[in-house]
Parts: sequence; C-alpha cells; structure tokens
Amino acid sequence: MNAITDEGLMRAVGVDAEQVVTELLKILPAHCVLSRKEDSRPYECDGLSLYRSVPMAVVLPETEKQIQDVLLTCRRLNVPVVARGAGTGLSGGAMPHAQGVLLGLAKLNKIKRIDAAAAIAVVEPGVRNLAVSEAVAPYGLYYAPDPSSQIACTIGGNVAENSGGVHCLKYGLTIHNVLKVRMITIDGDIVELGSLAPDSPGPDLLSVFVGSEGMLGVVTEVTLKLTPKPALARVIMASFDDVEDASRAVSEIIAAGIIPAGLEMMDKQATQMVEPFVKAGYDTEAAAILLCESDGAVEEVADEVARMEAVFQRVGATKLQVSESESQRLLFWAGRKNAFPAAGRVSPDYYCMDGTIPRRSLGQVLNAITAMETQFNLRCANVFHAGDGNLHPLIMFDSNSADEVLRAEDFGAAILELCVEVGGTITGEHGVGMEKINQMCVQFSRDELDKFLGVKRAFDPATLLNPEKVVPTLARCAEYGKMHVHGGVLPFANLPRF
Amino acid sequence: MNAITDEGLMRAVGVDAEQVVTELLKILPAHCVLSRKEDSRPYECDGLSLYRSVPMAVVLPETEKQIQDVLLTCRRLNVPVVARGAGTGLSGGAMPHAQGVLLGLAKLNKIKRIDAAAAIAVVEPGVRNLAVSEAVAPYGLYYAPDPSSQIACTIGGNVAENSGGVHCLKYGLTIHNVLKVRMITIDGDIVELGSLAPDSPGPDLLSVFVGSEGMLGVVTEVTLKLTPKPALARVIMASFDDVEDASRAVSEIIAAGIIPAGLEMMDKQATQMVEPFVKAGYDTEAAAILLCESDGAVEEVADEVARMEAVFQRVGATKLQVSESESQRLLFWAGRKNAFPAAGRVSPDYYCMDGTIPRRSLGQVLNAITAMETQFNLRCANVFHAGDGNLHPLIMFDSNSADEVLRAEDFGAAILELCVEVGGTITGEHGVGMEKINQMCVQFSRDELDKFLGVKRAFDPATLLNPEKVVPTLARCAEYGKMHVHGGVLPFANLPRF
Repeated sequence: MNAITDEGLMRAVGVDAEQVVTELLKILPAHCVLSRKEDSRPYECDGLSLYRSVPMAVVLPETEKQIQDVLLTCRRLNVPVVARGAGTGLSGGAMPHAQGVLLGLAKLNKIKRIDAAAAIAVVEPGVRNLAVSEAVAPYGLYYAPDPSSQIACTIGGNVAENSGGVHCLKYGLTIHNVLKVRMITIDGDIVELGSLAPDSPGPDLLSVFVGSEGMLGVVTEVTLKLTPKPALARVIMASFDDVEDASRAVSEIIAAGIIPAGLEMMDKQATQMVEPFVKAGYDTEAAAILLCESDGAVEEVADEVARMEAVFQRVGATKLQVSESESQRLLFWAGRKNAFPAAGRVSPDYYCMDGTIPRRSLGQVLNAITAMETQFNLRCANVFHAGDGNLHPLIMFDSNSADEVLRAEDFGAAILELCVEVGGTITGEHGVGMEKINQMCVQFSRDELDKFLGVKRAFDPATLLNPEKVVPTLARCAEYGKMHVHGGVLPFANLPRF
Repeated sequence: MNAITDEGLMRAVGVDAEQVVTELLKILPAHCVLSRKEDSRPYECDGLSLYRSVPMAVVLPETEKQIQDVLLTCRRLNVPVVARGAGTGLSGGAMPHAQGVLLGLAKLNKIKRIDAAAAIAVVEPGVRNLAVSEAVAPYGLYYAPDPSSQIACTIGGNVAENSGGVHCLKYGLTIHNVLKVRMITIDGDIVELGSLAPDSPGPDLLSVFVGSEGMLGVVTEVTLKLTPKPALARVIMASFDDVEDASRAVSEIIAAGIIPAGLEMMDKQATQMVEPFVKAGYDTEAAAILLCESDGAVEEVADEVARMEAVFQRVGATKLQVSESESQRLLFWAGRKNAFPAAGRVSPDYYCMDGTIPRRSLGQVLNAITAMETQFNLRCANVFHAGDGNLHPLIMFDSNSADEVLRAEDFGAAILELCVEVGGTITGEHGVGMEKINQMCVQFSRDELDKFLGVKRAFDPATLLNPEKVVPTLARCAEYGKMHVHGGVLPFANLPRF
C-alpha cells in the first residue's frame, strides 16, 4: 500500500499575483494576459455556477509554444494551472484556482487538416464541437459525439471530460472518436498519445488522458475520427403509462441485438416542462416517453424501425409515432436537447445530476428518485440517455432559499450514492470536477484512489494541474465520512474483501 | 522532464531459488509449487519460442488469497513475477524471468456467474476464451473477441494483451468487451477497475490495465460483456488481380459507411500456402482475396451484402463468391484461421509480425514488403486484418541457418519500422513483450517512454511485475541506436518538435 497523505499534495505558494503576472508578461504578448479582476471575473466558473473563484491571472495563448512557456513558468513558480475550453462543463472542472493561473485555449481554434479519404480531422483544442461537423459536411462526414452544448463546447474540453451525447450509445464517447492527442505536461514535455491505428503499443495512455479532466496535461492538438453521415435517420417516440415498462423496453431493445443511434427517456415531469417551450409534439400524458433512433441505409432503417416497434409493442407501449420527415425528427430531438433550458423556465434554479446505472436498474432507481422528491420536498424531472443507463435528474430549487440549496445538494448526493449502490457510477459524462469529489470516496476504495494519484503524479509530480479536483485526498474522504460501497450488484461473497 | 535512469529499474536479487521456494511453500500447498527444472521447463517460453528462460519456481495458485500471498512474498523478497495464462502469446510477454517466479493462473478457471439479461459473465482469469462462448451459447449470446488461439488462450491473457481477432473491426478488442477487472498489485492491494456503466469516473485505469502485458497487476476476475448471436452471417470472397486494388477496396468499404463483421486480406503467397492444407475453396489465381463478413438480421445481411458487392465491383474485383451456407462460411474462415499452421507446413519456421498501419497505406506497405523479400532473400506471406490495418506478415525461414534467423529478424524489424514511418504502430494485437521492445524506441519519444514508466511505477514501484519487457529503458534505446520517427504521415511542420 502506498498511502498518500495530504502533505504529499500540499504546496507552498510563495508568489503573489503581481509576481506571476510579471513573469507571464515576459513570455506572452500583453493582450494574452488578463490580470485585472474585472477582466478575470467572466472566467470565475464554468457551467456549474455553484462554485466560483477568481484566478490570479487569465492567460489566452495563441501558439503551442506559448502554452509550453506558460506551463514551464507556472512549474517554476509552483503555481497551479487550470485549463479551460468554452467553460460549458457541468461539474466545476474548469473552475479557476484562486492562487493559480487560468489557461484559456479559445484562441487555438484552427482546423488544421481534413483528410476525407481517411475520415480524420486534425484540430486545435479550441475548435468548437459543431464546427468540426460543419467543416466536414461537404465530404458527407460528421463528428459523432454530440453533447447538448455542442454549439459552444470545444474539442479540448470534450477530450478533458470524455464527453458523450445522445448518439454515444451507437457511436461511442469522445474516447471512441479520438485517434491521437498531442499534449504538454506541466514540465513542458510534448507528448503524443494514441495513433492512427486501432490500438497502440504499451499501456493505453490515450484512454487515461481522455477524461482526465485537465489533471495530466494540456491538449494542443487532437486527431478526430469522422463518421460517414447515414443516408437516413428516423426516430420512434414510444409512450408508456408506467416508468418501469419504459425501462424494461430499454433493456429489451438492447437484448434484441439492436443498437439504436440514440435511446433517450423523458418522464412526465420532463415532457410537461419541455412541451410548452419547444412544442416538439411529445405525448405529455404518458408516464414516460422513449425516443429511439435508427440510422443507416434506407432499407436498413426500415427494417430496424420495424424491429424496434415490435419490441415496444411487446413491452406494452401505449402509443408509437415514427418521424415522417427530417424536420420532425429534428423537432423530436430539439425537445430533448432543450430540456435544461426548459427547466430554467419553470424553476429559478436546477441542479443536473449525471449518475450512471446498469440498464436493468432503471425502473428501481427512477422509483427511488420519485420517493426522494417527497423526502427532500423538491421536484425532479428525469431526462436521460436511457440506452447508456446515464441519468440526468434535474432537481429544481430556488437558490434564494439557503435551505432549498442544502436540500438540493443532499438530494443530488443521495441519487449518486444510490447509483453506486446498484453497481453504477457517480458520473457518466459530466466529469467529477469539484462537484462529485466527495462521492469519489464512496465509489472507490483507498487503494483504488491511491492508483489514481499515482498516475496523476506520473504526469504531474508537483500536482499543479487542476489540483484539488477529481481525486479526493484520503483526509477529505475521512472528513466526508461515507463508506466505500463498491460493486453493489455483483455478489463476490466467496472472495475476501479488503 | 523526469528522466528515468536504468538505475531506477535495477534491483538487487539477493535471494536464491532455494530460499524463494522455501518461502513459497509456507504459503502454498506443495502441489502448487514446481521447483525442479524438469517441471518448470514446459513454462520456459510462450508462443514465441525464440525467447526461452527457466524461472526459479513456477507457482500454480488456486485462490485469489494465494495469489495475493505469492505477490506479497515476492515483493518482500524483491523477486520478479511473471504472470501466465495459457502461454499462447506471440511476443514473449509470458516468458519467465530467470531470477523470478512464474505465476500460472490456469487453475483459476471457473465461470462464476452468467447474467443473460444483462449480457455479462463474471469469470476467473484462467477460463479459456472459447469456453465463455460455449457456456453462454444456450442464451443466444457469445463473447465477441476471437483471437485465432481462442480454443486455448485464457481471458486473463486476453486482458493482458488486449487481444483482437477477425471480428474486432465491428465488435472491438478485448478492452471494448470487458466491463470490470479485479486485480492485485505487487503490494497485495486488491483493486477493481471499470464498472457496469459505460464510463467510470476519474482517469480510465481499466483501459490502461487492459493491454498492459502483466506490468501493473495480476487479474483475478473479469466481468465480460456478451454479445447477442446474430441471426445470420455471410462472407463474401472477393478476388483482385492487384494487391493495390484489394487495398483500395478495403478503404472504400469503410468509406461507404459499412462496418463488416470481419474484413481480412490474404495475398497469393498466403492462399497458395493455405489451399492445399484446408481446401477452403480460395481463388489461388488472384493476387489477393478479401474475406468480408456481414452479420445481423436476415434482411440487414441481404442488404449489406449487396452494398459490399457493389463496392467490390466498382473497385475492380475479378470474382465474387458469397457463402451459400453456414458450413461454407466456416470453411472460408477456416482457411484464414489456419494460415499459421499452413505456414508451418511449407517452411521449417516462420516469424509472424503484427504491425498496424492506416488503411490508406496498405497498398504501399504491401509493395514495400514484396521488395523486402528480395532484399532479405526470404519469402513472406501476407494474411491480415485488413479492416483494422493490422498486418500479419509471415516471414518464412529455417532456424537451422543462423544467417536466415538474422535475416528474418532484420526483415521483421524493417517491416515494423516501416509501419511506424507511415503513421502506424509496431503491434496491433500481439503485444510488445520481449519481441518488440527495441521498436518501442522507434515508436515513442523519450518523454513518452517516461510517462509509461511513471504509470508502471504508480502500480509497481519496485518494477517487479514482468520486468525488462514492454517499455525499454533509455539505456536500451541508446544502445539500439534507432531514431524515434513519430507520426510519419501527418505534417506537423508548423509546430516545434522536441
């Protein structure tokens, strides 16, 4: 056991903001350094506005060499660095460190190369997700991962968070659509991870890097895998008068060997919240609806839609509607993709959770969340990637009430800990960041957290990159005081446990 | 830069074999410890018989607790440990360390749990790959990765090597079909990596572990993802009178948005070698044949086969034949899967390489290999996972001629280094092991190798697990004297290089 103590992660920050800015101005043009509070303020949080902090300085480098110089300078001064894309993250991962530098990558926004024959694009980290698909559309290609924030979020941020989206059930997460990453460590080492081949020799450091939430290095270039646009896509909207039936339908679709392009569930609270806003044509009387997409060649889609409909009927769908046109299909998705803003219309504030559970536990967990609504006296709409078992409960509260804020946080923690209990995880695609760092103590054992910290130090021995996030120290876990409840659903009773 | 010196990897092995065996007998029953040379000899090599070494002792534990005790004992005595499944690996990864203990996992061969509804199986590491598919067949399921050695190789070995197979183009490598791994570090820590959900919080240590070739820990339990058996599968055999046309057909199939269940190429040398042996019905007059499989629902297969045929015709296939029955389909594959034994029939020895290249470079690399046949004066048959760009050139030689052995090794090294030059990798699915450790110096920069070593130490600070394999020390690279030629095909001319 290589126990990590908090001492090992402590640093003496011996420099003040003025000194840091002076050093940064030696390596960057003046317009790339923001040091006045009013200029830095817009960077104080990401999409999770619960956590805010103004950094000592914001730097906006324009070249890879400048990024390297910033990292080497911060390393020398022993100053924390937090990288940031568009700041659309939902777990506080890009929240600045008050004694650190915020490294914005927005200016590195060039698509450097498109190779349509090989179906790859080489892009800088600040390129927006949707901009990639727009640029490669003339070649009949697109970039598959489509987080709801895709109009704004950047590829660098997607890499940091291993972002998903409504189509990741079939097309995978970011890790499945990234071939190579070029990045710089805090020591200024330029490292390329991955390759154009399907597998790389040696331990797979690309997979460790994608989703490492800015803890290991700063991305300077990403080689993306592009996907041919399908000839046709159609969405089935299936209504159910019982959430458990809808959940069972999800498992049955997968058990039938069908991998839908998307398979999303929304409960009645969610459809009734969204419909007046988007007018997507949702069945607002159903206890839950599923949106199930088939894409591919024309004949394939006809065949797959028929098979999907048969499953839904067998499981007891009360109503089935198949999109008749591309505009209707997009409208069905528009309702789903606008669920968060719709929540913002009906509640002063909402708190979006991101637990993942085995699909078989969907019904059980949804019923438990309903019971929690009474327990915490707060409403919760459920909108989620059902095919992945990735829940996005939207807890509605009013941040003007300190009591409601506390109840919302407790409600969220209770959902996440239930996810772990049924064999799931505390985050599907939004990352741990600041938000779920306590739940990491529940998800992982002391020995497992040790391994994360060991890998962290292999890349960042001084723990300067995005410190105090993602992986909790043992002291923090002791303080949080909740037990590790690993591996709920699988009985390992015949093995010793430590 | 955190330069790793060779000193950091050195150990003082201060104990002799007798002392090691004495200590092992304190924690294991006598029948689980082999210490006589004649008993250990069968473990001296794996499938790559070029490298042999007899260990100080072989242990064959029967429980997880015994594995943990072995590891803790070896850690205390500072003795290297090499884990072994069935010993079918092709890169010397399971070759014992002469001053170490060989840890055989064959006795942990129980399938502990099958959950057909969730499509998962929980197995011990010594379970054979094919035994999983056999056990779950009654539920209409199978385990997708199918290395050619699947009748003998174990799941633990598959995890160590991230094994593939002819169907991994569509169904993924081992990493894509493993949900969780339970493993023990050299310090006796029991660690579970991954989860039943599609993604896990924190850096993805499961992906780093799968394919780490026994360097990070010893697997004691694996949770596998099972796949529903398709209703139908058919194979097209397409003939081409030019290897470049066949290579282009591979790219065109993928560019058409088709993901075949398998897409394999064999050149004329290979078909002429295999046909007399297997009588698979191959077109032995063609310069190359492709085997292209479609699987799925009956209507889907009909549609996809038609689309595949259209692509092949457009690219200039001289002959197309579609399997008419399941037995003919299996016969088409039998030829491919028996290519290695067929090579053994026509040549005293053969050396199977495993480079991976971008699909677009297939034609260029195959032509270069043909030129190398003249240069090294040795024959080479090409049989490979074309869809993945994963080459398996079979270099034929006679090990009774020292000169032929040297030429075969140089031929192999030249192929691998060409793979790196065109942007590929030195290994696709067979691992680095002993065999390709020098080529790692060509594939990766000093800073990149440093990161591998850092991750290694995060799990195994004393570098006792499978030492001196996979990741070369800097001293070894200096001695090998070949340059790192990273990222051949992509022009990064506008970025500084280090």
